[in-house]
Amino acid sequence: MKAFMDEEFLLQTDVAKKLFHEYAEGMPVLDYHCHINPREIAEDRRFENITQVWLGGDHYKWRFMRSCGVEEKYITGDASDKEKFMKWAECLGKAIGNPLYHWSHLELQRYFGYHGALSAKTAEEVWNICNAKLADPSMSARNIIKQSNVTLVCTTDDPIDSLEWHKMIAEDKSFDVAVLPAWRPDKAMNLEKVDYTDYIAKLAKVSEVDIKSFADLKKALVKRINFFAESGCVVSDHGLDYVMYEPATEDEIEAIFAKAMNKEALTAKEIAQFKTAYLTFMAGEYTRLNWVMQLHYGVKRDNNKPMFNKIGVDTGYDCINDYTPSAQLVDFLNNLAEKDSLPKTILYSLNPIDNAAIGTILGCFQNSDAVAKIQQGSAWWFNDHKVGMQDQMTSLASLGNLSGFVGMLTDSRSFLSYTRHEYFRRILCNLIGNWVENGEFPEDYDILGEMVQNISYNNAVNYFNFEMLK
Amino acid sequence: MKAFMDEEFLLQTDVAKKLFHEYAEGMPVLDYHCHINPREIAEDRRFENITQVWLGGDHYKWRFMRSCGVEEKYITGDASDKEKFMKWAECLGKAIGNPLYHWSHLELQRYFGYHGALSAKTAEEVWNICNAKLADPSMSARNIIKQSNVTLVCTTDDPIDSLEWHKMIAEDKSFDVAVLPAWRPDKAMNLEKVDYTDYIAKLAKVSEVDIKSFADLKKALVKRINFFAESGCVVSDHGLDYVMYEPATEDEIEAIFAKAMNKEALTAKEIAQFKTAYLTFMAGEYTRLNWVMQLHYGVKRDNNKPMFNKIGVDTGYDCINDYTPSAQLVDFLNNLAEKDSLPKTILYSLNPIDNAAIGTILGCFQNSDAVAKIQQGSAWWFNDHKVGMQDQMTSLASLGNLSGFVGMLTDSRSFLSYTRHEYFRRILCNLIGNWVENGEFPEDYDILGEMVQNISYNNAVNYFNFEMLK
Amino acid sequence: MKAFMDEEFLLQTDVAKKLFHEYAEGMPVLDYHCHINPREIAEDRRFENITQVWLGGDHYKWRFMRSCGVEEKYITGDASDKEKFMKWAECLGKAIGNPLYHWSHLELQRYFGYHGALSAKTAEEVWNICNAKLADPSMSARNIIKQSNVTLVCTTDDPIDSLEWHKMIAEDKSFDVAVLPAWRPDKAMNLEKVDYTDYIAKLAKVSEVDIKSFADLKKALVKRINFFAESGCVVSDHGLDYVMYEPATEDEIEAIFAKAMNKEALTAKEIAQFKTAYLTFMAGEYTRLNWVMQLHYGVKRDNNKPMFNKIGVDTGYDCINDYTPSAQLVDFLNNLAEKDSLPKTILYSLNPIDNAAIGTILGCFQNSDAVAKIQQGSAWWFNDHKVGMQDQMTSLASLGNLSGFVGMLTDSRSFLSYTRHEYFRRILCNLIGNWVENGEFPEDYDILGEMVQNISYNNAVNYFNFEMLK
Repeated sequence: MKAFMDEEFLLQTDVAKKLFHEYAEGMPVLDYHCHINPREIAEDRRFENITQVWLGGDHYKWRFMRSCGVEEKYITGDASDKEKFMKWAECLGKAIGNPLYHWSHLELQRYFGYHGALSAKTAEEVWNICNAKLADPSMSARNIIKQSNVTLVCTTDDPIDSLEWHKMIAEDKSFDVAVLPAWRPDKAMNLEKVDYTDYIAKLAKVSEVDIKSFADLKKALVKRINFFAESGCVVSDHGLDYVMYEPATEDEIEAIFAKAMNKEALTAKEIAQFKTAYLTFMAGEYTRLNWVMQLHYGVKRDNNKPMFNKIGVDTGYDCINDYTPSAQLVDFLNNLAEKDSLPKTILYSLNPIDNAAIGTILGCFQNSDAVAKIQQGSAWWFNDHKVGMQDQMTSLASLGNLSGFVGMLTDSRSFLSYTRHEYFRRILCNLIGNWVENGEFPEDYDILGEMVQNISYNNAVNYFNFEMLK
Repeated sequence: MKAFMDEEFLLQTDVAKKLFHEYAEGMPVLDYHCHINPREIAEDRRFENITQVWLGGDHYKWRFMRSCGVEEKYITGDASDKEKFMKWAECLGKAIGNPLYHWSHLELQRYFGYHGALSAKTAEEVWNICNAKLADPSMSARNIIKQSNVTLVCTTDDPIDSLEWHKMIAEDKSFDVAVLPAWRPDKAMNLEKVDYTDYIAKLAKVSEVDIKSFADLKKALVKRINFFAESGCVVSDHGLDYVMYEPATEDEIEAIFAKAMNKEALTAKEIAQFKTAYLTFMAGEYTRLNWVMQLHYGVKRDNNKPMFNKIGVDTGYDCINDYTPSAQLVDFLNNLAEKDSLPKTILYSLNPIDNAAIGTILGCFQNSDAVAKIQQGSAWWFNDHKVGMQDQMTSLASLGNLSGFVGMLTDSRSFLSYTRHEYFRRILCNLIGNWVENGEFPEDYDILGEMVQNISYNNAVNYFNFEMLK
Repeated sequence: MKAFMDEEFLLQTDVAKKLFHEYAEGMPVLDYHCHINPREIAEDRRFENITQVWLGGDHYKWRFMRSCGVEEKYITGDASDKEKFMKWAECLGKAIGNPLYHWSHLELQRYFGYHGALSAKTAEEVWNICNAKLADPSMSARNIIKQSNVTLVCTTDDPIDSLEWHKMIAEDKSFDVAVLPAWRPDKAMNLEKVDYTDYIAKLAKVSEVDIKSFADLKKALVKRINFFAESGCVVSDHGLDYVMYEPATEDEIEAIFAKAMNKEALTAKEIAQFKTAYLTFMAGEYTRLNWVMQLHYGVKRDNNKPMFNKIGVDTGYDCINDYTPSAQLVDFLNNLAEKDSLPKTILYSLNPIDNAAIGTILGCFQNSDAVAKIQQGSAWWFNDHKVGMQDQMTSLASLGNLSGFVGMLTDSRSFLSYTRHEYFRRILCNLIGNWVENGEFPEDYDILGEMVQNISYNNAVNYFNFEMLK
């Protein structure tokens, strides 16, 4: 029996152990997609206790506590931080097979030096250990990032954002980790939302473009995207129900936009037409700037209206939307290829059953613009666990070029999540180790070691073209 | 090599063996969903030969025999019982990888003391052994149930059922296993069926409500559901093509119902609207009574019309319906949540590719009403095999709270199927054992043992709130 | 650690080794579905260098090279054969987890005697070894087929084909491998294509039927199908987006056909109606002739229009179409059953998530016409890798009768692809070996050995009813 989560955690073979310890473990971390608040880096935030770090905004943990029958008072309610932690510890003690179990214990090991198992039995002990450690200056936001061997972080930012915190961080010579913005222009696309015109008004103000038409909107976005580019941004991100392809003429799009600005009702087809035109335009911009386009889709959000009314968005009430037609996705990408405006693209579906379809779609658009120009993103959100990552990488390898994969990201709001890169690397090395041990690939560390280091770090540097890391 | 189906069957690690033998094996069986005929329990049915038990109504076995090219004469036709058994033995001997192989051999081992392998070679021997054993009074329906360590069984019953057999069993003090009805009101929902008005007439008679409107139908159902509740029922069950959400006004529903009663043609949308309203109403009743709502969906039935015309329903001609939109399912549940009438709910899709979507939907509605208030049901029907159960539990664990799972049921018409609980527990213990052996969870039997016993039995007692078992 | 791809490649247990070496390995190869050009057999084609064999038309390899960022010049462009090979070797060296890695190395081992690992490092050596070997007469098309222990090959042929090469091969007594045509009548079905009327004109000419109506088209097809039958054909093949069921009257079909012949626009519904009628008619013919119907579906083709315009069809730009409604598939088959014209049928979906639905659909139509009359085809195209084959066989076994499976085919344009049968047999034996080693099935070689030999070869002989092989 392997010991519980020791240094050989998830490494089942000698090849896996060698690959992890000699090649992967020491590579830096490049976190090209996260939801960290740059202000907290700029201000070098400190944390009073482990509940603030772990349970302040982590809807993964909230969902799990609700699944254990815990009252909302102890989750997002007015119970004390310690009461919340005690409830969490009790739940986590039973979280067998859940990634939260591994994420939490990797964080306890790497940041707090605790190597036991958190449960109701050990909750008090862990509460004290963590809070004592958090009182140490080494546990400020910046110091956590530094001790995690991070070289670069991309946050997630709205086109109207001033990027003032990014600027402040960049100018502060005492902190040498790159903190770059990422362009997330969903609000300018979602014209079916009740507050769309309010958002457009804000965008108009920031961009100093009077937005009366889709043409104006595009002008405003170009101004903002250029500002983001000047601020070091090289990557965009879109959150979509699904990737749609519903072509329309420019006049039709203008008419739809005009209706939206007049707050008239839109049909599902009109919405899809507008979003198609919007994404097509944006992809053209990314091509112009040689940015990477990330498409995250297959999600249905805010599905519990009573709870949404109480505690709002991103609180643990989202699910997989299984309507993700591969035909529209591939037609959308083909249309960009035809216009010669298909940028480097990373596809993430929340539905793991899309793995195979995505794997075959990638292959339709690869060319010499980049190694693995079209990527399948790492196992995302609900799939970000051992089985999900194994399946995503096995599928990618079976259908395409695993060695060109840009690998892991945290997608997290927490400063302790860098251990997910370690988790990913262990799973990667174990997968490759199993193939080699089974005689399916030669034990050639020139090839294997380089591959593991590339997937861990170097591929991302090259793919996103981060000049400062070369 | 492990010996063929010995006491360590499916238990690959020491942890798995310990968990199964010391914790799971001795737990009683609570079969909260089956299709046993309560009359056969009331009358303590006896069986003449193994063909009657095994091949009398088991469409799983029929399908397999047809896949082997066996003539229908030897399946549902007029061949002798012995001839049928000999054909079945020949087929089973080749059924590698099929759950029938394990189910049948577990039954041969536990009920007939036969530990060999059934095939054409051993058919005669097994025929004689089984029939000799069946002649013994220990093999009556009630005695089989008792020796299987069953404490409670829920049958599946129509709202118009008199529940007379349940009453007779309850009053018979010589039999102390609880045999409770379950409420399966599909016929009152399926207004597209040709015999819908006939059914409504029967329901009207039994309930003594003159049913002229949907409001009347609801009145009639309330009377019957109260009768079921008085008879000890705490669980309902619905068989659906898919879980739909197509809202409509009360007036629209009344108009649709009126059309159905006039035998006018209905559109697909109208049918979905009626079913949505019907299920919404029923869910409200379950909430009022604190019952559990089971939704079984993803099925297309009776797909071979020539055979349907010859031998009718439930004869092995059903398949997976892969239209199971997660968006409608989650909208349906959200609507109930908004009305504060979402009962404890168990979701079963026949399509295993729905596992991940279901796992994420559960999490949107969990709260402190119950531990794991919304459950994913155990691997159902065509998925009720080793891989299906492993996948369902791995998915449930990765996305939610496996420790709160209510576990196994037989879903069977046969009195010998209780060994499927053993099959499930072996797979459960092996899954957990593998995690522990791989260092992914601590070897802490306080936690593991309790978890295994809860999933095997205690969770079901608490979740369904069976007072007599507490 | 197992050695790299030695004689025990993929065989993890003693049972697997015994089954493969003593039962499977020596069985002949029956390749009932491939895309080999019969002219190349008739003319006994020779190959100048390994690039011609490997990279001449293999879009699997082209896709992989593009995924590695290789310029098109080195793929389908004007680089020299050697330059192309060097690029390919460099890519393959990194193709971990991809079936190309195993296919290529099995071919290097079996046909070229090279047991090393191809990569940039060994490219020059392998280039020389292969080309020297190709200069030997033993490496002509016919000799490759013979040394591969092939007894029969079915090519893929259009109804207007003269079958002259097949005739020539059949008449040549010096070559005793059966090379039979297979009937692939897609072009007569796809009335939405711009060149449909051109094709109909060609068919009219060859069949000597003046095609003015659907009735005429059917007459022409009957003449051609009879010609194919006389030429030894016993199997058909259809390539479909999905299996549709959209019934219509004969008059409606005639009207749709008339519109197509007039080059009028057709609705999606009309196209589906015509294709339903067409397939239904064809299935009736297959029933009449006791042929096997193969349905390949779940594909979206030619998704990169700029590349399509440059290099045409079958160049590596296809993907999975995830719209494959199980309800229509089963309704289509049921309609044939009702007309008593459901032939032996093999279903292949390109989407692996359809495995379970297909497995349950098979069971709805099995009968004593044949063992496993309705088959799930082996893991197809993008699924033709270790995981894909394991999943397909595990699903088939769990839901039906694995022992009746007709097994592998190459689906290939290359004469070196027969090693894929070996690859399949190793995976099959390993899967069965694991079940036996885990105590899930008895170690009875009478049953296991026969099963493995049947799936490797005998089942196909019997299912397709190849008289010359009995």
